[in-house]
Amino acid sequence: MPADITFQQRLSQTAGLVEDCLDGWLPAGKTDHATSPRLAEAMRYSALGGGKRLRPFLVLESARLCGVNDEGAVNTAAALECIHCYSLAHDDLPAMDDDDLRRGRPTLHRAFDEATAILAGDALLTLAFEIVADASTHPDAAVRCELALLLARGAGRDGMVGGQMLDLEAAGLTLGEAEILRLQAMKTGALIRYACEAGAILGGASAEKRAALRRYGALLGQAFQLADDLLDVEGDAAVVGKATAKDADAGKATLIGLIGIEQARLRLAALESEARAALASFGDDGRILADAATFVANRSH
Amino acid sequence: MPADITFQQRLSQTAGLVEDCLDGWLPAGKTDHATSPRLAEAMRYSALGGGKRLRPFLVLESARLCGVNDEGAVNTAAALECIHCYSLAHDDLPAMDDDDLRRGRPTLHRAFDEATAILAGDALLTLAFEIVADASTHPDAAVRCELALLLARGAGRDGMVGGQMLDLEAAGLTLGEAEILRLQAMKTGALIRYACEAGAILGGASAEKRAALRRYGALLGQAFQLADDLLDVEGDAAVVGKATAKDADAGKATLIGLIGIEQARLRLAALESEARAALASFGDDGRILADAATFVANRSH
Repeated sequence: MPADITFQQRLSQTAGLVEDCLDGWLPAGKTDHATSPRLAEAMRYSALGGGKRLRPFLVLESARLCGVNDEGAVNTAAALECIHCYSLAHDDLPAMDDDDLRRGRPTLHRAFDEATAILAGDALLTLAFEIVADASTHPDAAVRCELALLLARGAGRDGMVGGQMLDLEAAGLTLGEAEILRLQAMKTGALIRYACEAGAILGGASAEKRAALRRYGALLGQAFQLADDLLDVEGDAAVVGKATAKDADAGKATLIGLIGIEQARLRLAALESEARAALASFGDDGRILADAATFVANRSH
Repeated sequence: MPADITFQQRLSQTAGLVEDCLDGWLPAGKTDHATSPRLAEAMRYSALGGGKRLRPFLVLESARLCGVNDEGAVNTAAALECIHCYSLAHDDLPAMDDDDLRRGRPTLHRAFDEATAILAGDALLTLAFEIVADASTHPDAAVRCELALLLARGAGRDGMVGGQMLDLEAAGLTLGEAEILRLQAMKTGALIRYACEAGAILGGASAEKRAALRRYGALLGQAFQLADDLLDVEGDAAVVGKATAKDADAGKATLIGLIGIEQARLRLAALESEARAALASFGDDGRILADAATFVANRSH
């Protein structure tokens, strides 16, 4: 990687890599696969529908810091993106957040129908494990198995799905700060931590490197969520690409409702600098991930 | 295992073992887990709600034929049952089959709500991979990884989920026999084949034994589906424990609509004897699985 590449260039580069990889795992139209063409199309719509591809970027960058090239990490990144996209498809359903707009396009169940959105989500979730368990993901089955185990923990009842459930249950309740932070650490934090730790697993990194990447991921996840909450309060739906002021409309407790916008901004800046500091041991190699923290803390969409 | 144990005794014994195992993976009430208590309760309702536990039985029995005791196979059986139960929860949703009754009780979304049923299904699907990838499932990571890979293929777009999608798309269409058989081989067949093959994977069985178990599983799956179709046409809802005549009401093509009840009965008898024959190389050890084929072909619920 050239020394002068910027974070934005690298983000765009890794998005292209993971989209090519997903395109390979999600063949369009008539194929040798038994898959229903409509199901295949819905899976592609969900997984190839744009987005920043932040989680795949984190996998590829953390892998690079642990001596693994993009080719050796892209399957894991693609699998994680399948999980992320399935979760968006299910969260958008009428029985959940009931959203019509996602990344500036109709949500999956609007573009297809509810049954197809449920099944395409199930199929993407399942495909994620097919990808990480596939021999092409890493030559060592023990590595693939650990990737699958931690992916399941991060995505499941004590991670992302559990956080979404707590979020639904929180409507109309007054959550304290600790409860909100715990919910967010599960709902969005778990897979962001996984993204950063996955690179260390792929590279067989030392416990110290792995802990540093995990700590960075935890801080980045908190920054990501706080920035998202700020966007929900202050953002313009046309720029954000999805409905805003949703949390207030749904009566959901957010950290901003508790501590106010000004305090939220201060805390976001602190998280950004802590996340950058967590990468200190990687020296200049950690620059791109450090800049990712700055980007996440200051994003406008 | 005593030589004179019957199939029914063994089915009941293995159901107890897998329910104890699932109970351990699905702790109730307040625990150290971060899981929402309501989500945990919904997962238990779905996974511990009875049923014959046929798929877990097939895993434990095929494992026994390959030299693996129940303890060494029960995690894999429990994981497969998580997948089966999640699929029932999602298939019962209003956007899909819209069922109110399952195993004589309210369906998951009726007992809880739709959002909880979607998330509990997602969490059970994810938990299945957490279980097979866990070190307690098998000492060899390569075995765990193969179990996860084939489970994902059997459960996903080219297997169970894909079959459910084709089934939904089939409403009102006139499918030919080959199309119906393909749909069924995916929707119910894939995980029954997996159940039988999983024992061979756990036991590191020879290619011959593995192929025999897979062939048995394929025949058993066809017999299972045909018997299910016959029950749907002829069964009594009170005995079957769920709504009957659903396929006809939904305008779905079934094999019986195509070949008639009498031909279906003849074919079912042929599948039963072919399935029994597929186990010939196991000698008397294969007796319990052979009797399972007879049970499946003649079940009344």
